[in-house]
Amino acid sequence: MFQTFTEHSSAEQSPVRLKALRAEIARLGLGGFLVPRADAYQGEYVAPCDARLQWLTGFSGSAGLCCVLAGAAGIFVDGRYGVQARAQVAAQFTVLDLPKTQPAPWICAHLPKGGSIGFDPWLHTKQQIETLRTGLAGGGIELSPCENVIDGIWRDRPPPPAAPVRAHPLALAGEAHQDKRKRLAQLLKKSGAQATILTLPDSIAWLLNIRGSDIVRNPIAQGFAILHADTRVDLFIHPARLTDIAQHLGSDITTHPPDDFLGYLATLAGPVQLDAGTAPLAIADRLHATGVEIRWQPDPCILPKACKNAAEIAGTTEAHLRDGAAMCEFLAWFEDHCQSGLSEIDVVQQLEQKRRATGALLDISFDTIAGSGPNGALPHYRVTQHSNRCLRNGDLLVLDSGGQYQDGTTDITRTLLVGCRTGQAQRRSFTRVLQGMIAVSQLRWPQGLCGRDLEAIGRRPLWQAGQDFDHGLGHGVGSYLCVHEGPQRLARSDATPLQAGMILSNEPGYYREGTFGVRIENLLVVEKAPPLPDADTHRPMLQFRTLTWVPIDTRLLDLPLLSRQEKDWLNAYHATCRKVIGPRLSGAAHPWLVRASAPI
Amino acid sequence: MFQTFTEHSSAEQSPVRLKALRAEIARLGLGGFLVPRADAYQGEYVAPCDARLQWLTGFSGSAGLCCVLAGAAGIFVDGRYGVQARAQVAAQFTVLDLPKTQPAPWICAHLPKGGSIGFDPWLHTKQQIETLRTGLAGGGIELSPCENVIDGIWRDRPPPPAAPVRAHPLALAGEAHQDKRKRLAQLLKKSGAQATILTLPDSIAWLLNIRGSDIVRNPIAQGFAILHADTRVDLFIHPARLTDIAQHLGSDITTHPPDDFLGYLATLAGPVQLDAGTAPLAIADRLHATGVEIRWQPDPCILPKACKNAAEIAGTTEAHLRDGAAMCEFLAWFEDHCQSGLSEIDVVQQLEQKRRATGALLDISFDTIAGSGPNGALPHYRVTQHSNRCLRNGDLLVLDSGGQYQDGTTDITRTLLVGCRTGQAQRRSFTRVLQGMIAVSQLRWPQGLCGRDLEAIGRRPLWQAGQDFDHGLGHGVGSYLCVHEGPQRLARSDATPLQAGMILSNEPGYYREGTFGVRIENLLVVEKAPPLPDADTHRPMLQFRTLTWVPIDTRLLDLPLLSRQEKDWLNAYHATCRKVIGPRLSGAAHPWLVRASAPI
Repeated sequence: MFQTFTEHSSAEQSPVRLKALRAEIARLGLGGFLVPRADAYQGEYVAPCDARLQWLTGFSGSAGLCCVLAGAAGIFVDGRYGVQARAQVAAQFTVLDLPKTQPAPWICAHLPKGGSIGFDPWLHTKQQIETLRTGLAGGGIELSPCENVIDGIWRDRPPPPAAPVRAHPLALAGEAHQDKRKRLAQLLKKSGAQATILTLPDSIAWLLNIRGSDIVRNPIAQGFAILHADTRVDLFIHPARLTDIAQHLGSDITTHPPDDFLGYLATLAGPVQLDAGTAPLAIADRLHATGVEIRWQPDPCILPKACKNAAEIAGTTEAHLRDGAAMCEFLAWFEDHCQSGLSEIDVVQQLEQKRRATGALLDISFDTIAGSGPNGALPHYRVTQHSNRCLRNGDLLVLDSGGQYQDGTTDITRTLLVGCRTGQAQRRSFTRVLQGMIAVSQLRWPQGLCGRDLEAIGRRPLWQAGQDFDHGLGHGVGSYLCVHEGPQRLARSDATPLQAGMILSNEPGYYREGTFGVRIENLLVVEKAPPLPDADTHRPMLQFRTLTWVPIDTRLLDLPLLSRQEKDWLNAYHATCRKVIGPRLSGAAHPWLVRASAPI
Repeated sequence: MFQTFTEHSSAEQSPVRLKALRAEIARLGLGGFLVPRADAYQGEYVAPCDARLQWLTGFSGSAGLCCVLAGAAGIFVDGRYGVQARAQVAAQFTVLDLPKTQPAPWICAHLPKGGSIGFDPWLHTKQQIETLRTGLAGGGIELSPCENVIDGIWRDRPPPPAAPVRAHPLALAGEAHQDKRKRLAQLLKKSGAQATILTLPDSIAWLLNIRGSDIVRNPIAQGFAILHADTRVDLFIHPARLTDIAQHLGSDITTHPPDDFLGYLATLAGPVQLDAGTAPLAIADRLHATGVEIRWQPDPCILPKACKNAAEIAGTTEAHLRDGAAMCEFLAWFEDHCQSGLSEIDVVQQLEQKRRATGALLDISFDTIAGSGPNGALPHYRVTQHSNRCLRNGDLLVLDSGGQYQDGTTDITRTLLVGCRTGQAQRRSFTRVLQGMIAVSQLRWPQGLCGRDLEAIGRRPLWQAGQDFDHGLGHGVGSYLCVHEGPQRLARSDATPLQAGMILSNEPGYYREGTFGVRIENLLVVEKAPPLPDADTHRPMLQFRTLTWVPIDTRLLDLPLLSRQEKDWLNAYHATCRKVIGPRLSGAAHPWLVRASAPI
């Protein structure tokens, strides 16, 4: 099993660790120290050796910052994590809610004027530190880069990831790293920059067509890279981890031990591009100290990585059919067993089993969310031995899961009925969520718009009933890479024009606290819309093509709410499920698919 | 008649005026001079004495900037005005399209390094000049404030507006100016500012409950005002124009001749609030020169003015019923006469006649747009003797018009069928435009969203057919003030959360160049949405209430495109039209209303 059900963290050790940290802070003459959840790669997951925030506080969420002062220790978390953090951390820590309480004013209120806060410049970006510095200036408080104080006191700290790095086959990547490097190097040259420094592991994985297993759920290798305007790359991942792929990398890619990175920066001729939103401040400080001109530019891999090529789209299409068949095998099993005392953990285990049975599962793409009844109302619920709940007749089960396959990354949510009857509020909400999901699936829009400009379409059916949900409508998805991949989103925070080849989730939901939740999610790929009889010829339009083909539980529909057009969409969707998934199913699951995909 | 049909401008005089201007520029030792369309009040219309751009170039559009250099004269206009400007200006002027060509690079390309461009600091805001200064810095070109060079050579310049200013009755304003001043002064006090300088005539009109007739279409009086934190106001409009309303203004409002304004600024104790986006730079420069601290803040009247109170909403509701009855009288007449050789000018005249017949029309709220056939494809078409076209059988007529009444400002667009049959493309496009308009009319949304977040709802039916339109979905509307009033819009450029009391137009359209146009527009007012059975109790929602009640031409519908719900909305809308407008109609128009509002 990839997924585990233990509580990752226990806060028993926190008081003694906090005491040791404070002693060290005092010894260094600092007024405090910042402990962020982030590592040097600013991703959603960290390796065990980088789980400093959890080691110190017990908090296991994917985002947070602890400010440790002599007299107070505040842990800042966003809306997703307030409840969890309060449950996980010891009494010595005060949980503070972002964006309501910001670190800078809190620090100013708890530290005397003239104090100095230490921070590890590898774990923060320039933008983060600038924002904080501006906020602290009023309180006369300084931010001082220093060695990581946690690392100095963490005795049994795990070693860094050391597994071999693998090549990602050209047939799946669709473009040789030689060609990708040439493409990006030309842009560098044109802009007058000599090199760009890549600090995001999934950017490096995309550029060099490599994959790793340094952290769970995301097949990436941690390291930094420098792409030069002459297409050469310096790659800072331990050469011992790269011996299997020496031929794949070829002679234009020079490998270096990670420890040589900082020294190498001084040898660069500027100007050098760096991403202010993701690169560790330590890199900028070093370039600055050695007189290398920095040009602040977004990581040049992010946009081309998001726009999947034909091979990547073919790969993810196949991965979704394979994953859809595994989902259907699970759903057929679930129909037979859901009323026999199943727990949420049983569901997660059985689903992972079905995905493993494909013989192609390399990892799950995130920890499965299996929230039954009231647990379904927590959008990011993760079942543990402690929270595990037995399914009851009439429950809704929100089941959000995905797989990592070599040809693609999947992410699907279905809301399932336990038993055969549920309440009207459940059915009406389910139907409205589906209406939003259908409206987005069918959408056409003029080229140039961002996800932000489209998001209302997926929420309107809920709005009309006075309902809404407090997460984005969708996120980008990688190609055998991270299941949350930028830059595009279907969310109000988005500002990236959608382009052909981008993969997005379409996942409206509804959550009634303490009662039930609903979410329905398919992945979509953006493509050019074909011409229509009345269309403006001068107005290029885009549309979505659906990747996910798994029946939607029609027993949960409040049919009179659906328009003829929505029913037609659903029937056509189910007919395609039958056609493309049917031939892949076992004899046991096939009859279920026929029933589940019957026209309404 | 308010509306005229002459071409406002002729470019015959341009060459000699340009020559005189260049001589004066050279005499002053300048490299050039900026001639914007704007006056000191940054509104959509200018008084004849301020129509400097038109006087110089012949261009009569509502936005533009002419940069006159020794060897070149460029006139910068946006997408609305490219065609018009090219038709209106003499060969000495080069028309340049914004945003593609920006003034700064153009000036740099046409003026030697070290040159200096003069500008009248009363006609530009700080933001405008800062943007231009930044752009010119690279070319080593300076911007120098100076006397207006046009004013020095414009011999027969008309005098400034001098008509008496009127009081706006409390029963219609809904809040005494004493209370408005108190409300705003409290905010000023709280922020630590001593005063705020108001430079927008409609802000002053709202604050002091006054109206004027200084420019066409907008019932405002031009002038400046200073609101002090102790609720006093200094009003810079010639006292002779205010004698009728001395009692209305009361003793807390001190009136001054406009010429005393600049001198008075030096007497202020700072800090003083000023709006960087709308205040003339001359004011900022003067405050700066006399050492008065400036706090850059948006004009504090803009938001409260936009959120209409109960009396204003009651007023506009009544104005819309009156105006709707006039529209229906016109439409009944139109049905009988549209095939008898009517021209667009006949339509405009007859419609204004019907509005005048209410006995309450104080002005039209903008020049009526009456675009038949291919003219309907120009969203901002204004008929002239030259462009006037006779209606033909099968034409669509886009008729966009409104009235200024003391109780409210109206704005309505209907697209009418001339004769009884038109093409399928016309009917399908009309139906899609209506579908968008209905979807917005019915919308409910969570409080906190901006127009930008909702706009897709009104465009989706067109998008689905590969169509769209190149203007915003809607604009704010004043209360017997400007028909285009901020800050809220239904447009991608919007960033103002919608609030109860805001009035917005809902006007999707479709334009097929050289063939036909469609636009359907109602005004809506934002209000709190009443509770619904399934609604989230913790989620306050807003909705629109329709103000405009005039039948929509059902002969233009492609009925199979409409859903049951859309048909229900339209039938309910027409039933309300019959109910609320019917009793106000003449015996001649009533049978038309009954026919036009028949259920589909």
